[in-house]
Amino acid sequence: MAVLRRLVAGRWHHQEEDHRRPGAGHQRLPARPVIAARYDGFIVDLDGVVHLGWSALPGAVSTVNTLLDTGKRILFLTNDPRFTRRSIADRLRGLGIPATPDMVITSGSAGAARVAPGRVYVIGSAELKDEVRAAGGEVLSDVDAHLADRVLVAGHSGFDYTELRAALRACSAGAELVATNRDATFPMPDGLWPATGAVLAAVETAAGRRAVSVGKPSPEIFRVAVDLLAVPRIAVIGDREDTDIAGGRAAGLDTILIGSGESHADHIIPALSGVL
Amino acid sequence: MAVLRRLVAGRWHHQEEDHRRPGAGHQRLPARPVIAARYDGFIVDLDGVVHLGWSALPGAVSTVNTLLDTGKRILFLTNDPRFTRRSIADRLRGLGIPATPDMVITSGSAGAARVAPGRVYVIGSAELKDEVRAAGGEVLSDVDAHLADRVLVAGHSGFDYTELRAALRACSAGAELVATNRDATFPMPDGLWPATGAVLAAVETAAGRRAVSVGKPSPEIFRVAVDLLAVPRIAVIGDREDTDIAGGRAAGLDTILIGSGESHADHIIPALSGVL
Repeated sequence: MAVLRRLVAGRWHHQEEDHRRPGAGHQRLPARPVIAARYDGFIVDLDGVVHLGWSALPGAVSTVNTLLDTGKRILFLTNDPRFTRRSIADRLRGLGIPATPDMVITSGSAGAARVAPGRVYVIGSAELKDEVRAAGGEVLSDVDAHLADRVLVAGHSGFDYTELRAALRACSAGAELVATNRDATFPMPDGLWPATGAVLAAVETAAGRRAVSVGKPSPEIFRVAVDLLAVPRIAVIGDREDTDIAGGRAAGLDTILIGSGESHADHIIPALSGVL
Repeated sequence: MAVLRRLVAGRWHHQEEDHRRPGAGHQRLPARPVIAARYDGFIVDLDGVVHLGWSALPGAVSTVNTLLDTGKRILFLTNDPRFTRRSIADRLRGLGIPATPDMVITSGSAGAARVAPGRVYVIGSAELKDEVRAAGGEVLSDVDAHLADRVLVAGHSGFDYTELRAALRACSAGAELVATNRDATFPMPDGLWPATGAVLAAVETAAGRRAVSVGKPSPEIFRVAVDLLAVPRIAVIGDREDTDIAGGRAAGLDTILIGSGESHADHIIPALSGVL
């Protein structure tokens, strides 16, 4: 069968490759240089790469399991700040991936580590507040927001004007402004949903101040992932040029984009299975 | 008593003047050129000028009534999009000002006129939705937001993630994005509260698109006010350089700033009573 392979701007583009399908009458081509063979470990984005709205994307679960079976190390790195690492590991196991909490880093866990200890006003989910408490932070109520040392902003479906006003009161009283990340949207089966970046824009506009953001593309969160992987050759796999690819490159890592179009990634593949 | 008067950058600054106080032992100074004498009509901001959180500011009500008694025309122009013109006139009458709905223009009534007729998804108060319906618009529910011709964004205390997501769905489906105004905050007795500009920043960030804004400092809303006043010499009175003063100047009007500091206003006074 045809293996489409184009060298564009000095990088390999693997487009809709399907060379592994056992097809009668198709001659097996000589082994091509599989992307996975070049690396010992992968920092893998979740939304839009492994799953979409917690439904697995085609081929993603089997690809992750093949990588793990062949001795590759994997660390899941997501900018979704709504869930704890344990909760995400549980969800991944529900999809058929043998993930443990120490295989997961979220912008929420990074944000919690950044704002604790101290008194924190959190715009975010109940699970994010649990992460902040687990990191040693005291989570303040809306009423006590003006006492906060820091404000941590994360997108969540419970965001409302009361939180926005409390965050403004905290900032007006001198609290430091920290955000889990700046993604404007995240992909869902019915289209894009507003993400942390949108909620953060409201807070920053009201407060007249720019937040420190700890999630992707911050290189620091990739360095934490690299330390945890503890293998020499590591690549970042993601579906966003502005976070996964830009952040991976800033951290000095090879990058693999799931998608199409202009990119600074080292490899572009149509789906996670393209690494095999 | 002392009348402090400084000519700064070619403009009169009246600072903490109190020349009208009848004080024994104080000699009455010769009549100074009262600001009010120069104009036939005033476009007056509300929040921070006439009231703060619907408590009248010192001297404001008597000043407005004196202006009206001496034959001056007044039009109240507010960027607060939460209330109908009738509702604001009622509140002003509650403060002791004989206002009628046709003496009020809000960024909400201007926004309603801009988005109607047609199907409109509104982020805003129940009163703003009434304004849109009164202007001939069909107000859509969150569920039907994707059917909208236009989205109208206004700050209100009921703003939440459901509205933000519905607005993004409408914009993704091609709806035009209109905002009542861009004020980031508004003054309240306990400090600043988030205003339309903060809510709008969330929508614009999620949608990746910039809205058309109809409130101050848009010169159009001042031109509407000028037409309604129908007198030759008109000045704008407000407490915000970026909306009241910038907008009034863009509309070719004289401007009076309530406050202090650097300003492009023609006059700077410490409170509304400074015009008398």
